[in-house]
Amino acid sequence: MVTLRSLQPMVRPGDVYHDSQRVAIIDMGTNSWRVIVVEYVPGLSFKLIDEVQESVRIGEGMAELNVLRPAAMDRAARAAQIFAAFCAASGISDIVAVGTSAIRDAQNQARFLQRIERESGLKVRVLSGEEEAYYGYLAAVNSTTIENGFVMDLGGGSLQIIRVEDRKAVRSISFPLGVVRLTEGFLTSDPVTAKETGALADVLRERLKSLDWFAYEDGMQLIGEGGNVRLVARLQQKRVEYPLDIIHGYEMQSKEVAEIGDVLARATVAQRRRIDGMKPERADISLAGALVLQGVMRAGGFERVVFSGQGVREGLFYERFFAGDEPDHPPIFADVRQSNVLNLGHVYRFQEVHARHITHLTTRMFDQLPPDVHNLRPQEREVLWAASMLHDIGMAIDYNDHHRHGSYLVLNSGLPGYTHREIALIALLIRYHRRGKPSLDDMAALCEPKDDRRLEQMTAMLRLAEQIDRARDGAVKDLRLTVTGGRCIMELVTQGDEQVPLWAVERHRDLFTGAFGLPVEFVPVPA
Amino acid sequence: MVTLRSLQPMVRPGDVYHDSQRVAIIDMGTNSWRVIVVEYVPGLSFKLIDEVQESVRIGEGMAELNVLRPAAMDRAARAAQIFAAFCAASGISDIVAVGTSAIRDAQNQARFLQRIERESGLKVRVLSGEEEAYYGYLAAVNSTTIENGFVMDLGGGSLQIIRVEDRKAVRSISFPLGVVRLTEGFLTSDPVTAKETGALADVLRERLKSLDWFAYEDGMQLIGEGGNVRLVARLQQKRVEYPLDIIHGYEMQSKEVAEIGDVLARATVAQRRRIDGMKPERADISLAGALVLQGVMRAGGFERVVFSGQGVREGLFYERFFAGDEPDHPPIFADVRQSNVLNLGHVYRFQEVHARHITHLTTRMFDQLPPDVHNLRPQEREVLWAASMLHDIGMAIDYNDHHRHGSYLVLNSGLPGYTHREIALIALLIRYHRRGKPSLDDMAALCEPKDDRRLEQMTAMLRLAEQIDRARDGAVKDLRLTVTGGRCIMELVTQGDEQVPLWAVERHRDLFTGAFGLPVEFVPVPA
Repeated sequence: MVTLRSLQPMVRPGDVYHDSQRVAIIDMGTNSWRVIVVEYVPGLSFKLIDEVQESVRIGEGMAELNVLRPAAMDRAARAAQIFAAFCAASGISDIVAVGTSAIRDAQNQARFLQRIERESGLKVRVLSGEEEAYYGYLAAVNSTTIENGFVMDLGGGSLQIIRVEDRKAVRSISFPLGVVRLTEGFLTSDPVTAKETGALADVLRERLKSLDWFAYEDGMQLIGEGGNVRLVARLQQKRVEYPLDIIHGYEMQSKEVAEIGDVLARATVAQRRRIDGMKPERADISLAGALVLQGVMRAGGFERVVFSGQGVREGLFYERFFAGDEPDHPPIFADVRQSNVLNLGHVYRFQEVHARHITHLTTRMFDQLPPDVHNLRPQEREVLWAASMLHDIGMAIDYNDHHRHGSYLVLNSGLPGYTHREIALIALLIRYHRRGKPSLDDMAALCEPKDDRRLEQMTAMLRLAEQIDRARDGAVKDLRLTVTGGRCIMELVTQGDEQVPLWAVERHRDLFTGAFGLPVEFVPVPA
Repeated sequence: MVTLRSLQPMVRPGDVYHDSQRVAIIDMGTNSWRVIVVEYVPGLSFKLIDEVQESVRIGEGMAELNVLRPAAMDRAARAAQIFAAFCAASGISDIVAVGTSAIRDAQNQARFLQRIERESGLKVRVLSGEEEAYYGYLAAVNSTTIENGFVMDLGGGSLQIIRVEDRKAVRSISFPLGVVRLTEGFLTSDPVTAKETGALADVLRERLKSLDWFAYEDGMQLIGEGGNVRLVARLQQKRVEYPLDIIHGYEMQSKEVAEIGDVLARATVAQRRRIDGMKPERADISLAGALVLQGVMRAGGFERVVFSGQGVREGLFYERFFAGDEPDHPPIFADVRQSNVLNLGHVYRFQEVHARHITHLTTRMFDQLPPDVHNLRPQEREVLWAASMLHDIGMAIDYNDHHRHGSYLVLNSGLPGYTHREIALIALLIRYHRRGKPSLDDMAALCEPKDDRRLEQMTAMLRLAEQIDRARDGAVKDLRLTVTGGRCIMELVTQGDEQVPLWAVERHRDLFTGAFGLPVEFVPVPA
């Protein structure tokens, strides 16, 4: 297993990562073609820096003869030229171009690939169904906390299902049941008829029935990938006025998926375009996406699906990202949460030494406060950890209001690996780490009962830790916390000048006292 | 006059400014003491990176004997120790510490300064009234577009008024009429009586009457500085639910200032603390702030005041920032707007070559489109210029949604030198530079009639320019625009591969056609 290496010594804002590289990944899908450009330091941090997309529909009209049609190939050749010219103009020489379902299955594949190479210079690697499934799995296992369960990846041409056990892909399959194919093959009326949607559901059920390894067991998760699957989540979020603008990590119940399917089935394509959240270029294929998701959940006996914002492109990237690591180890983060927190820190050039020191101080408080004094559970410790590591990233935007900016950055990143409730709490902890009365605000809908109290207690810890290291010099090395006689004694184990810490904590003791119902006394102790 | 030097060659995101320095400026005011830490590259860019504040009230109880009181000196000595320890712990050796009104006027100044130096090591430079006025002027002339008029800077201990002609300070004066002194001297009841506020107004009128050089003339501006003045603006913004959270550049009419004064005069200090926007630690002195602002405007015959978010501290910083420049030149930006736009670009590590190229293309469109085709005025050209320079700064946050992030960054920075209407338009231009139908949205209240149309036309220019240089390689060197026979011919003067530009502009021609009511045709021409 590969772990994220940590940068030592400390990287200060403004320092440079000297060994950053750029790779362009070109995904020639059945519906849309896309280039993503990622800047990365192998094993350390990565960041999307450009993206170009073209709705090529290379698979259009393939159903009958299984050959790519001339008009579709012309569009594809033009897109390949543009993409290659874009990479050349951007000075990117490391290009990974892959073709998936439509190209894989086309009888005229060889001639098509020759034309692409001749006209654009791009050498296309055609992924087998198994390989496509593998990269979808890599994306899921590196961006979610799935241990056991299934990944489904739905494209324009094919549907992949991967079984995951202990974070390993143990079985996978690819069906030619992508949304462009299914729409062309089954959903030809506008609006569709019940007979058409029924026929699609029948085919799906028949094909999935054959998989004896695809069935829900206790503790299993289902991860849904692909733009057509994400669109279902997007429509649902608009429908319920969801407070976060993040798809990755969003969860839906099978009943809700069915409702979205019903809404889409009753509408004409023109009407679907006007639905809040619809991607106009996907309006025609959106119903097939909802129906396949519904069919897969039903066939596997899944009540819930968790959406992933990543997919085959990111899977290909992870392979590249970990390429320098030991050969026998799979390209997988040892700990998805930690890795994504560190990546966010590096992208915003956090002061890692200070961040880690604050994290040490808050987790010490968490561990040393008696359980009857706080009502925080082990899962909250990971929330406090992440917020402590990231509390200052807003300084990348501006020192003034950096607590607000940090919250903005966390909500924007979506912090893969954490649930939306946890992301909300992390953002709120950062929001209130300097001042203000902690409140769940408009995130309340995502939270559990008592989370307001948990937020208050964790904020008290983080705010006090930040004051203890107010000068960011680590003068207070450690702390020892004892609760005795209805008061909390906090020994500050100090090496160096204790004036700033003692001055700073005095001004913020009230929140701590209020959160735990204990007066707190600070006692400096030489290290 | 000093201009901002431009970094060459291009600085890419992630590159480092090797020669950055840090300075701590310690401002020992009559009311509050503050350290700001600024990181800067001389003459190029600067950024606040830390700030510590303590409400010392060194001037408390000075009124009678003009001596600093023992309790106040103890608080001050403690704060000085903390500030010095903070600088030491932060590794900052370049410290500028200044004392203003209370220290300047104290009979026991020398002993106090000896104690400060003995106990904290800080050598304090005591500013004369004239020097304090000068630094207030430096802040105003470097952060606003004032050419002629006055700067008023109101502190806890003193009030400075500076006359500005052609951006030069030609006269200045300092009165011991700061808000702490006036509150202690006049406003002692709670709530205050009409007699008390009347007496304060009388004193102010008497003192200001003597200034024969302080009177409004055509084209003059009044700039208001200082935390107590800004608080008036803050209260007014809350009152009217102002759509921007920016004080710098905000404008108020004398009538509105008087209304805020009335509200504060009718309230007890405890009631004032509950007014939306009030800074609790300034509740007692807030009325004096409003009354002095009102009195100054009345005495000078000013109908309007523009607030500045900068003051003496920033003035001291500008002196340092320009210190390397030719000795005879004043530490003043040649062009405040340009300098602040470039600073923002540098802080977010923009791709300067691409930004300047986009700016070249948009201003070419602006200049070459016949006036009867667009209804944009010369002042809009500076808005388009700024938006073009800054269109991509949101990439510092994330490539995804970087148009939204860029808008967030501009609104957060407040872009000194531009009016709030202009800042709103710049933010909206960035917001819509990639996609979406331009709309004034919640900024409409700040805008002029026809600004929706202006926004649409400028967005069309920026979006097209961005597509022309979509690969950021400058392949299209220049453009020539002619309108003939009801259509617009745009010649793209190209050196290199024209495929990406031609592909990219095709997808965005509609906005341009709609904005100007002209079909547009793109014609590549070899350079």
